[in-house]
Amino acid sequence: MHAIRSLRLLHASRRIASTLRPGSTQIPPSVAISTAQSWRHHSTTTDTTASELLPDLLEGVVFGDFPSRTHRCGDLGKANVGDEVVLMGWAQNLRKFSDDLIFMPLRDSTGTTQLVFKQANADHENVRDVLLGLTPESVISVRGRVVARSEGTVNPRMSTGEIEVDLSSILVLNKVHKPLPFLPTNQELVNEEIRLKHRCVDLRRETLQSNLRKRSLAAWTIRDYLVQNGKSLVGFTEVETPLLFKSTPEGAREFVVPTRNAGAFYALPQSPQQYKQLLMASGVDRYFQIAKCFRDEDLRADRQPEFTQIDLEVSFGSAKDIQALVEGLVKSVWKKIKNVEVFDGQPFPRMNYQTAMAKIQHAADIQGDNVLEAIVLRDDTKLSGSEMKRITRTNSKTFPVVKITEESIGNWLQKLPYSSQLTGEVDNAKVNERLDIRVGDTIVLNSRPRFLSGGQTSMGKVRLELANTLQAKGSLKIPSSQYNFLWIEGFPLFSPDENAAPGVDRLAATHHPFTAPVAEDLPFLANSPEKVRGQHYDLVLNGVEIGGGSIRIHSPKLQTYVFENILKMTPIESSRFSHLVDALSFGCPPHGGLALGFDRMMAILCGTPSIRDVIAFPKSASGRDLVVGSPSGLTEQQLKEYKIKVSEA
Amino acid sequence: MHAIRSLRLLHASRRIASTLRPGSTQIPPSVAISTAQSWRHHSTTTDTTASELLPDLLEGVVFGDFPSRTHRCGDLGKANVGDEVVLMGWAQNLRKFSDDLIFMPLRDSTGTTQLVFKQANADHENVRDVLLGLTPESVISVRGRVVARSEGTVNPRMSTGEIEVDLSSILVLNKVHKPLPFLPTNQELVNEEIRLKHRCVDLRRETLQSNLRKRSLAAWTIRDYLVQNGKSLVGFTEVETPLLFKSTPEGAREFVVPTRNAGAFYALPQSPQQYKQLLMASGVDRYFQIAKCFRDEDLRADRQPEFTQIDLEVSFGSAKDIQALVEGLVKSVWKKIKNVEVFDGQPFPRMNYQTAMAKIQHAADIQGDNVLEAIVLRDDTKLSGSEMKRITRTNSKTFPVVKITEESIGNWLQKLPYSSQLTGEVDNAKVNERLDIRVGDTIVLNSRPRFLSGGQTSMGKVRLELANTLQAKGSLKIPSSQYNFLWIEGFPLFSPDENAAPGVDRLAATHHPFTAPVAEDLPFLANSPEKVRGQHYDLVLNGVEIGGGSIRIHSPKLQTYVFENILKMTPIESSRFSHLVDALSFGCPPHGGLALGFDRMMAILCGTPSIRDVIAFPKSASGRDLVVGSPSGLTEQQLKEYKIKVSEA
Repeated sequence: MHAIRSLRLLHASRRIASTLRPGSTQIPPSVAISTAQSWRHHSTTTDTTASELLPDLLEGVVFGDFPSRTHRCGDLGKANVGDEVVLMGWAQNLRKFSDDLIFMPLRDSTGTTQLVFKQANADHENVRDVLLGLTPESVISVRGRVVARSEGTVNPRMSTGEIEVDLSSILVLNKVHKPLPFLPTNQELVNEEIRLKHRCVDLRRETLQSNLRKRSLAAWTIRDYLVQNGKSLVGFTEVETPLLFKSTPEGAREFVVPTRNAGAFYALPQSPQQYKQLLMASGVDRYFQIAKCFRDEDLRADRQPEFTQIDLEVSFGSAKDIQALVEGLVKSVWKKIKNVEVFDGQPFPRMNYQTAMAKIQHAADIQGDNVLEAIVLRDDTKLSGSEMKRITRTNSKTFPVVKITEESIGNWLQKLPYSSQLTGEVDNAKVNERLDIRVGDTIVLNSRPRFLSGGQTSMGKVRLELANTLQAKGSLKIPSSQYNFLWIEGFPLFSPDENAAPGVDRLAATHHPFTAPVAEDLPFLANSPEKVRGQHYDLVLNGVEIGGGSIRIHSPKLQTYVFENILKMTPIESSRFSHLVDALSFGCPPHGGLALGFDRMMAILCGTPSIRDVIAFPKSASGRDLVVGSPSGLTEQQLKEYKIKVSEA
Repeated sequence: MHAIRSLRLLHASRRIASTLRPGSTQIPPSVAISTAQSWRHHSTTTDTTASELLPDLLEGVVFGDFPSRTHRCGDLGKANVGDEVVLMGWAQNLRKFSDDLIFMPLRDSTGTTQLVFKQANADHENVRDVLLGLTPESVISVRGRVVARSEGTVNPRMSTGEIEVDLSSILVLNKVHKPLPFLPTNQELVNEEIRLKHRCVDLRRETLQSNLRKRSLAAWTIRDYLVQNGKSLVGFTEVETPLLFKSTPEGAREFVVPTRNAGAFYALPQSPQQYKQLLMASGVDRYFQIAKCFRDEDLRADRQPEFTQIDLEVSFGSAKDIQALVEGLVKSVWKKIKNVEVFDGQPFPRMNYQTAMAKIQHAADIQGDNVLEAIVLRDDTKLSGSEMKRITRTNSKTFPVVKITEESIGNWLQKLPYSSQLTGEVDNAKVNERLDIRVGDTIVLNSRPRFLSGGQTSMGKVRLELANTLQAKGSLKIPSSQYNFLWIEGFPLFSPDENAAPGVDRLAATHHPFTAPVAEDLPFLANSPEKVRGQHYDLVLNGVEIGGGSIRIHSPKLQTYVFENILKMTPIESSRFSHLVDALSFGCPPHGGLALGFDRMMAILCGTPSIRDVIAFPKSASGRDLVVGSPSGLTEQQLKEYKIKVSEA
C-alpha cells in the first residue's frame, strides 16, 4: 500500500519535473536541493558548477528514493491478476507491434515477466519513449497491473506464462552506459576468457543464477542436517579454524604469506585437518565446517587454487558411524536439490581398494609381479585418431593403442613391446575370448605393478576421460539422474615414496600420516608396514572421488612411531607436529572424520562438467582472477614492509 | 540394545584377556591378529618384534572396536533412572570414601555426570584398580545403571544433579600420557600465553565450550533468518567470494600472497566489498556471507589479523530497508542466544553523527573553530593515578587531567594551557555550574575541531576505557543484560586525508570510496565536497561499533567523478577499480548493504571483554598462533619456488 502511494507521488512529481526539463525523466525529484531541512551549520551557497555537473553524473540513473518493489518477476501468476505491482529488473529485447502495442520481458533473479505497453494504460505519454529508448540489460522499475493472457497467448514454458503486466509507468534506475561485451541470453558464442572477465554479465544467465542458488541451498541443507542430526544426542558445532596457518614444507605445495617480521611466514591451509583433530582433543564432540582450503598446484580443468570442502570430525565414533552420517548427509542434499532418493533406505555399497583397482581388465601377466591391463573399446565408439591420442596421453604417459583388424586379431599380443616378458596365459585366442575382443575393437593397454597403492591409477583416468568424451559425443549414454555412490576401503596405509631420492626405498603415507591402521594389521607395523591397511574410506560418485576420510591415530606413541620409524621423519620434521602429539597425550578421544569436495559435488548436482560453473568468481586455468586482474604486482613500499624482494633466480 | 550387547561381549572377552595377561586391561581383544579373514595375498609371518612393540605403542589406549555411547553425560536426568548406559568422556578428580565407595565426575561436551563405584555393582574386581589408577582428563568409557540420588545428596546446581551412575565397568580409551600444563577446571592461575599454547586443554573449560557452541548457534540463527527472511519475496543467497584477491595498495595494510610467477601476488581481502557489489550487478538479488577477512594491522586487545564478518548486500533496497533487515537479524540472534527481546517490537533509535560526537560535554570555545571538551568524573570513582595515566594516554596523545580542589575550583579554567585562546563564555563559575563540577571531581580535557569527520574520537575512546575500567573495579554498574543498540547516521562522506603529504589538502573517503552521497547534498559535490554527507550508517551496541554499512554509488559516472575529482586518484590508481565501474556501466541496480563484526558481537553475547574467548584458535597479541607455532620460517626451496628473497633492509 505504502509502496504504491509513494510511487504515485513520485510519478506525479516526475511529471512536473518532466514538464520543467523535457527529457530528464531519469532524474527524480529527490535530487532537488532542499537546504531548508539541512542539519548543517555551514551556509549554503548557490553552486552553478554543481547544477551543471549533476545532469551529467546522474544521466540515465535514479539517485535517491524510488518506489518499493511489491513482487519479484518470477513470482507472479494467475493469483495476482488484478494486482497493481511494482517490479524491478533488467530490460530485455522488446518487440514493437505498433506504436500502441509493445512487448518487453523484464528479468530479475527469480524469472521473467512479460510487460505490455498500451498507450491507454500509461500514466504519461513519455512511457513509450522511455521504453523504446532502452538498451537491453538496463535496470528499470515499472508499475502496472497484472492481467491474464488470452488463451492463445499463454506460454506454458514460462512460469509466469499465464499473465502479463499492463505497463502504467517506467523509471530507468540505471541505464546501460557502455556496450555490453555480450548478452547474458546469447553467450554461447563468447569464449570463456571474456565471460570470466565480465563475470557480472555472465552470472545473469539463468543457469549460473540457478547454480549459485543451488550451492547456497546445498550449504544450508548440509548445515541443517548436521546441526539437527543426532539431536537425540548432541548436534554438530560449526567451528571456524584459522586460515593463517603454518607452513609444513613436507606436504604438497602451499601458498605462503609473509609477515612484517623478516623471514616469518604464515601458510594458507590445504585443509583444517590438524585443527579439527585438536578440536577433538578439546572436547568438541562433533565438529563441522564448510571450509576454504588452498592448494598451489598446477591447475587442471577441475582444480582451483582455493576450494571449499565440507569438513567434519567426530569423537568416539567408528568408521561405520561416520559413513552412515555422511550417507545421510549426501541423501538429504540430493533429496533437496534433485528431489531424488539416493539408495532409498539402503546404505551405499562398499568396495575393497584392490577390487576397485582390478576393475580394468587383466590381459596378461608380465615378469616381475607386473600385469598387462586393457580397456577394450567396441568398434562403434567412433573416436577420431586425435581424440584417442589426447585421451591416451594423459599425464605425460603414452599408452599403447592397438586397433584389431582381420590380420592382427590372431597375434596382436605377440606384437606388443611387452611380448617377450609375458608370462602365464599368453595364448592370443584365449585372451581374445576372455576379453571378448572382436575385429574393429580398439584396445588401450598398460603395464602396471600387480599390487597397487595410492589413489586413482593413470588407466583409471584414461577410462574416465574416455567415458566423458564418449558421453559428450553422444556415443555413451549415462542417465543424468543416475548417482552411483560407492565407498572404497582397505587402502594400504603406506605406499612407496615417489619423492624419495633414487635408490632410497622409503614409505610415504598413502593419505596422510594421521590415518589409523586397521587394528588387525597392527602386528605388521614393525616389520612389514607396507602390508598394513589404513582405516581410510573414499566416497566415489559415478567414478569420481568426491570425498575421503579416516579414523585417526589417537595414541601419541603410535603417532610418534609412524612419524619416526615408518615415515623416517627427521627430528625437525616431526617436531612440526609436536602440538598434535601433545594433544593426543593430554587425553584425546578416539576420533575420525571426512571431507567432501563441495565444488565437485555441486558441479555434479548442477550437471556441469566444470567446477567453474558453480563458483561465483573462479580463477582461470592459469590461476588468474580475470575480473579484478589478480595476481598483480606490489609496490616497492609493500615489498619493503614485508621484508621481501622479488628474485627471478 | 545393540550397543549394550556388544559392550557385554567386549567386557566378557576382556575378562579372558585379563586372565591371560594380567594388567593388560587397556588392550582390547580387537587388536588380536586374525589372519584367517585376511584378504591379502601376502603370506603372514610370525612377527616377534611386532608383538613386543604393540603393548608399548598401545599402552593406555583402546585401539579398534569399543562399545557405542548410549547417552551424553549432560543429558541424563530422572527420566533415565533404571537405564543401563554407556558414557564416554574425561575423568575428573575422584573422591574415595572407602575401598567400596568411590565417586568420580565424568565430563563430556554436554556436561558432567557423577559416577559411583561400589564393588557389588562392578562386573569385575579390576574396575576399582582402573578407576584409582586414572589421571584426571584421561578419556574413558564406562557402563553403568542410572540411579536416583537420595534426597540429601541431590545437587541442584548440576543439571544431572538428581541422578548418578552406578559403575559396572570401565575402559580407558586414552590415558593422559604427559602431565597436563594445567587443568581445565583450574586455569585461573595460568597466564594466557600458556593457555593459548595448550588451547586444546583450555577449550575444555565449560565457558569456552559454551562460547564455541553459542557462536555456532548464532551463525546458524543468522543463516536461518537470512534464508527464511523475505520468503514472501526471495530469500538471501549465500555466496562464497574469493580469498585470493588483488592487492589495492592505497587501502589499509593487507596480507599478500606470492605466486610462482615472479612479482605477481594475490592479496587477502579486507572485506568482500568489491565482489559483493559485483554480485549486485550480476543479478544476485540478496547476497550474504559469513566471511573471513584479513587485516595486517598492529594488533590491539580486540583485533585479530583474521576475523569474521556477517556480510550482506541487497539490490533495490533503501537504507531504511537494510536497517530494518539488520534489526530483525540482530533481534533474532539475541532472542536465540540470550532469550532477550531487544527493543521489543520497536526499531532501534537513530542518532546523527554530529550529535553523537557532541555527547562529550562542551566546556568552552577555543579560537579558530575549535572547542574544549570535558569528561567529568565524580570523586567517588576512585581511580588510581596510574590508572588515570594509562587511560588518558591512549593512542600516544596525552589529555590534560584536572583535579578539582577547594583552591582550584574557582580558577581551573584559567590555569589550562588553552586559557589564553578561550573565547565566548569563560566565566569559571558558570562553566562549573553548567558541567555540575564539584570539589573532588576529576576532569579529563581535550581540544578538538568543532566539526568532526570520521569515526570514534580519541575522547570517545577515553570515555569507553574509563567505563570499562570503572566497570571492572565495580564502581560503575551497567546491567549485563542491557543492550543499547543505536544507529549513527549523517557521517561526512569525505574527511581530510591524514596520509596526505604535509601541506597537501586532500580528501579521503570517510568509510570507503563506494559510499553514495545523501541525494540532497549532491549539489555540494563539485565545490564543497566536505559538506556532503554519506548514506552511511553505523550500528553501535553499548558504545561499541559492531557494524557499518551504506548505500553504494550505482552511477558509473558519479563513481568515476569521486575517484578522479574528489579523491584525486591517478589514472593508475583508479584503473584498479575499472572492473567495478564496468559493472556499474553494464546495468547495475541501486544497492546497499552492511557488515557486522561477528567476533565482537559474539564477545558481547558471551559476556567476555576479549574476542579471543569466542575464537577457537586465536592469534596472540603479537599475531602468533601459539598452538602450531606460526608464523615460521620457510625453506630455501620454498622461497625459490615463490621467487622471493627475505630482505631485512
